[in-house]
Amino acid sequence: MTDTAGSGHLSSSLSATDLMTTLFFGGFFKFDGNNPENNGNDRLIFSKGHATPLYYSLWAVAGLISEKELLTYRKFDSVLEGHPSMRFKYTEAPTGSLGQGLSMGLGMALAAKMDGLGYKTYVLLGDGEMSEGQVWEALELASHYKLNNLIGVIDVNRLGQSGPTMIEWDVTEYKKRISAFGWETIVIDGHNFSEISQAYSLAHSSSKPSMIIAKTIKGKGVPFIENKNGFHGKPLPHEKVGEAISELGDIDKNLLGTLAKPKIGIDAKKSPPRNSISRVAQYSIGSMVATRKAYGEALAQMAYEYLSLIALDGETSNSTYSEILKNDFPDRFFEMFIAEQNMVSAAVGLAKRGKIPFVSTFSAFFTRAHDQLRLAAYAEANIKLVGSHAGVSIGEDGSSQMGLEDISLFRSLFGSVVLYPSDGVSTKKLVEEMAKNKGLTYLRTTRMETPVIYDENEKFEIGGSKTLKSSREDKATIIAAGITLHEALKAYEELETAGINVRVIDLYSIKPIDCATLEKAVEETGLLIVVEDHYKEGGIFEAVSSCLSKKNVKLESLSVTKMPRSGKPEELLRYEEIDKDAIVKKVRELLR
Amino acid sequence: MTDTAGSGHLSSSLSATDLMTTLFFGGFFKFDGNNPENNGNDRLIFSKGHATPLYYSLWAVAGLISEKELLTYRKFDSVLEGHPSMRFKYTEAPTGSLGQGLSMGLGMALAAKMDGLGYKTYVLLGDGEMSEGQVWEALELASHYKLNNLIGVIDVNRLGQSGPTMIEWDVTEYKKRISAFGWETIVIDGHNFSEISQAYSLAHSSSKPSMIIAKTIKGKGVPFIENKNGFHGKPLPHEKVGEAISELGDIDKNLLGTLAKPKIGIDAKKSPPRNSISRVAQYSIGSMVATRKAYGEALAQMAYEYLSLIALDGETSNSTYSEILKNDFPDRFFEMFIAEQNMVSAAVGLAKRGKIPFVSTFSAFFTRAHDQLRLAAYAEANIKLVGSHAGVSIGEDGSSQMGLEDISLFRSLFGSVVLYPSDGVSTKKLVEEMAKNKGLTYLRTTRMETPVIYDENEKFEIGGSKTLKSSREDKATIIAAGITLHEALKAYEELETAGINVRVIDLYSIKPIDCATLEKAVEETGLLIVVEDHYKEGGIFEAVSSCLSKKNVKLESLSVTKMPRSGKPEELLRYEEIDKDAIVKKVRELLR
Repeated sequence: MTDTAGSGHLSSSLSATDLMTTLFFGGFFKFDGNNPENNGNDRLIFSKGHATPLYYSLWAVAGLISEKELLTYRKFDSVLEGHPSMRFKYTEAPTGSLGQGLSMGLGMALAAKMDGLGYKTYVLLGDGEMSEGQVWEALELASHYKLNNLIGVIDVNRLGQSGPTMIEWDVTEYKKRISAFGWETIVIDGHNFSEISQAYSLAHSSSKPSMIIAKTIKGKGVPFIENKNGFHGKPLPHEKVGEAISELGDIDKNLLGTLAKPKIGIDAKKSPPRNSISRVAQYSIGSMVATRKAYGEALAQMAYEYLSLIALDGETSNSTYSEILKNDFPDRFFEMFIAEQNMVSAAVGLAKRGKIPFVSTFSAFFTRAHDQLRLAAYAEANIKLVGSHAGVSIGEDGSSQMGLEDISLFRSLFGSVVLYPSDGVSTKKLVEEMAKNKGLTYLRTTRMETPVIYDENEKFEIGGSKTLKSSREDKATIIAAGITLHEALKAYEELETAGINVRVIDLYSIKPIDCATLEKAVEETGLLIVVEDHYKEGGIFEAVSSCLSKKNVKLESLSVTKMPRSGKPEELLRYEEIDKDAIVKKVRELLR
Repeated sequence: MTDTAGSGHLSSSLSATDLMTTLFFGGFFKFDGNNPENNGNDRLIFSKGHATPLYYSLWAVAGLISEKELLTYRKFDSVLEGHPSMRFKYTEAPTGSLGQGLSMGLGMALAAKMDGLGYKTYVLLGDGEMSEGQVWEALELASHYKLNNLIGVIDVNRLGQSGPTMIEWDVTEYKKRISAFGWETIVIDGHNFSEISQAYSLAHSSSKPSMIIAKTIKGKGVPFIENKNGFHGKPLPHEKVGEAISELGDIDKNLLGTLAKPKIGIDAKKSPPRNSISRVAQYSIGSMVATRKAYGEALAQMAYEYLSLIALDGETSNSTYSEILKNDFPDRFFEMFIAEQNMVSAAVGLAKRGKIPFVSTFSAFFTRAHDQLRLAAYAEANIKLVGSHAGVSIGEDGSSQMGLEDISLFRSLFGSVVLYPSDGVSTKKLVEEMAKNKGLTYLRTTRMETPVIYDENEKFEIGGSKTLKSSREDKATIIAAGITLHEALKAYEELETAGINVRVIDLYSIKPIDCATLEKAVEETGLLIVVEDHYKEGGIFEAVSSCLSKKNVKLESLSVTKMPRSGKPEELLRYEEIDKDAIVKKVRELLR
């Protein structure tokens, strides 16, 4: 495969081959190959996603893909990509950015426990990725939640990409550390079939999550590359392939393995019947409510309707208001503690097993999980992210707590949706849309209370906008969302009193964006001013600018441009020139 | 302070007060308050950055700020922000996003070892943040590098923001885990002064990095909030303040503490004299070289000139080519293994102690450290980030390895510079500029070889661009950088043959951006097409669109819009329609 492709990770596959063939064909891994969605199937994640030559070969030996297909490896039209992607039907979740697989597996193991399903989740890890902190986040949480249905296997082949790993072959060091995190640890020779089999049996009977720590040889079976640096991620020199194959001994390609079947007809545990007391928060126009709180209310309400809806929070549930769901449905809330990377990847695992996870923390702290969100997008995972405490308007806590790049981050994710409501009603309606629609969706909420501006009967859709003020005499359009929408509305009042009409648009859906309405505003008013509590780069201004790039329009930006700091919310909005006064001043200046 | 401010973390400060007063005034912490830059000074980082009421009070009791100033806490004009920022002169590095302080401290401890300086670095950690994987990345690396000048103190007060921590008061569990990571661990009662003093003495004499694990009481000293949930990040009810103060007993505000002085006249170890054999790679026009390799060559060359320049890599040095510096200067290269979060925060610590760290990994994997980069920007740290393997043009490895949102990420950082050279010469020149200029600077490099297009005498500056093709008959302008510039040049040739003149601009400096040249192109050609191997959101197109928002211009984007996958580089450039053919087609279509 790697010779035909001209690239690929041969040596990293050979070290784990004995471990994985024993898992697949030793009766341990139970999988109905004709029905990958059978919910009794065990789950397998190659966290060392580069070992795809082994990964795809296992499915071939199981008779589920052909040898001919293997030779399409890494080619443009093949589903056998360099790292596992969702285009290959047996991929549980995409990997390739290291250290994420155990967290995804943790999510699947949690789902199994929730649903009372007996399947096990296996995760193959490289030893190099054990240095990623996220692995230790998954380790600590798996023991906290007593996930004895989660089984990891570390392929300790001693060599990373550029040299030896930090711990090399010191398997007792791995054992010491992982045991300390509350796991069953089983140290074995990863090329001794009897030890490997025993290890899986032991793992199956443990009351804790289990880690098999296998000392292996990188390039095993091809003596001239065994345990040698310089062969990571490279095929053999073409002229050495014959020699390598002959070193492997007689190969009988007719010999196929058989996967053990899971029990048939297993049903997910019935979800509890809908609680009769449904929670429906009502907001009257002019009343004050923080959108973060409206989110919490709406989330709990949705939980009555969507039985697969769950919530995860990074120890901020009293700030994000996911605690409302936690109080109503303690079994459907998971405290993920302060470990955002693991939280997001675990949500991917939960989503892949049919849950609808709503994941919340401060908007700033989603930057902690940017890489995990990137893979979540490639996983096409149905996850919902909710970031509170957006912008300088959080006030006194200062810059480290302010989400000022979250819109940029979430916009840049493949296929994402980005929403930013400004009041209680629009928040509630958009949370309903989030629950209904599949895919990665981000909702940005505000810390402080804001007045309700919409009637309970107003409708909101992903990709929409609301033109709140409009007349034939509009001289400019102010585009805002969230906190700045209220500043825009105040500016409208002041300008109107002075005889200047402006249009005001609530751009609550930032991606997808309502270009048609924006284009109409260009045609009718000529001048557009975007006001946002976010940095200019990648934010609402650039989203607007991007969709109007073919239009003849004067576009102005009011955004966060000075080093943010502590202060009262209104002081900071003034300092950054994104408040009512700044809007009025800008309009007057441009119309002069 | 918290009563006057109306917000702030009182209870989290009280739990650590005995620990920190003993450190400051028990003769352990050596600091010349009149000269914070004395390089013999010990260093202190509050990783639990929310404990600022304690942090600022310590400096007040040391006589370095006044009590009156304390009462400006969290106010707009005060430097005493909610979380430590660089505006306060004793802040070593900003904190507030949890779990980063130990890594920053690790960087400072590494700098001390490099320079042969005897200062110690202390880090106060909260127990809640111990769940962040980054802390374990710092723990594993500090023991790997035997940093016995790094001393952590965990304030185990059992309660997080929304409830109990994962481990609560089980200090033996902390001891087990941290010992397993190779640290000296000292478990104490964090309110027993004799145990605290003994712990610091023990830590000073250890041959390993030390962690003091202190069992404490949140809200200590104010009985009605002691060890109670619901008082995180909140001042006391105003009417209870008097009662709380009287509970603390007699307070003598005249009693100030004295900080022990560091030894005077300590000089940093002399750096080795400049190696006489300087490495100067020369590239001739038309020859082929990957910009990642040119980066490695230039980095090693700069290391001869800048004696404070060092390199950090996340186990990818043979791909990023930082290995060239590693080979020339093994003592100035730090293998940070696969732990990008710790790598970036450690670089901040190193930069704060005068080093010029160049930090490299795949461009995609900087997303792993987005939160750390965010604080690095607020730290105003002089760090350089270099991301290789940008874009779909990496080919067969597939989406997980492709940097497609890195420009967006780095553009959104406060005060950042973003560079993207296309050939060996421009890379070399821009690396020189990076070393010369202070601040957070990102360089994006390409995996595949590209032809050298610039003469060795060409000059490049941050904020500049190069107009490579230009005539009076230009009908459109193609803006590109990196790999797509070469596609643009090929398109130019094909169009010219067909009698269509286009302008070609190499936009190697994406932030700051050369608006003047772009505006001139608008005026002279009317139509601009931006071609980039990156997602549209937050990328080069939006940077261009943003700076031309007030111009009447037709702007077109050719960027990565389809789910990326494995394949040959040229197949993927074609698939995403960012290759020569796509450019030619777009120009013809628009000029029709």
